[in-house]
Amino acid sequence: MTDELSSLLSPNYKLWLEHDGEYVFGPGAYAILVSIDEEGTITKGAEALGMSYRYAWGVIKKIEKKLGFPLLETFKGGTVGGGGAIVTEKGKQLMEMFVRVKTELDHVIQNK
Amino acid sequence: MTDELSSLLSPNYKLWLEHDGEYVFGPGAYAILVSIDEEGTITKGAEALGMSYRYAWGVIKKIEKKLGFPLLETFKGGTVGGGGAIVTEKGKQLMEMFVRVKTELDHVIQNK
Repeated sequence: MTDELSSLLSPNYKLWLEHDGEYVFGPGAYAILVSIDEEGTITKGAEALGMSYRYAWGVIKKIEKKLGFPLLETFKGGTVGGGGAIVTEKGKQLMEMFVRVKTELDHVIQNK
Repeated sequence: MTDELSSLLSPNYKLWLEHDGEYVFGPGAYAILVSIDEEGTITKGAEALGMSYRYAWGVIKKIEKKLGFPLLETFKGGTVGGGGAIVTEKGKQLMEMFVRVKTELDHVIQNK
C-alpha cells in the first residue's frame, strides 16, 4: 500500500536561506546569479531567464540590502564590450552554501 | 568567510508530495490530519489549529479528489459524544510517507 503511494506521489521541495526567520535567498535569486555569472552582464543574464533587467536587478538589490554586502560588481567596458557584471567573492560563497545544502536535499529526494 | 555566512544564514525548506508535477499534499494538510487524529473530530482538529471546519474540510476534500481515496472516515455518535472522524489506513500511510521524507530532510538541514 505504501509502495502504491510511492509510485503515485513523489516528494519535492523548495529550499531557501533565511536570517532571523526572514527569507533572504532562494532558487530564483540563485538562478539569476548563475545566469549573470555565465552571461557576463545583468542584461544578458536576465534575458536568458526570460526576465527583465529591472526585475533581476531588483531581486539582487533586495538581498544585498538584507545581507549588507554586494553580490555583484559591475564595471564599465572599454571601446568594445560595453562593460559587465561579475559575482563577488561573497556572492560566490552564498551560491556555494545554497548548492551545498541543495545537493544533499536532492540526494534524499531522489532516493525516495 | 563561508563560516561567516553560515552563522548569518540558516537553510529552511518546504516539502510537498506531488503527482505528475501537481501539488497534492504539504505541511498544511499534514498538520490538519495530525490534529484531527489527535482531537477525534474535524471541528476540534480544525479549532486546535485556529482554522474553521470549512477550511480544514476543504483542504482534505481537495486532496481526496486528487488521490481518489478518502483520508478521513466520519461517523455519527451515540447519545454521548456526537460522532467523530478518524484518519483512514491510506491517510495514515500518506502521513507516514510525508514524515519519512521530512525526517531525512530535517536531518540534513539541522546538520548545516
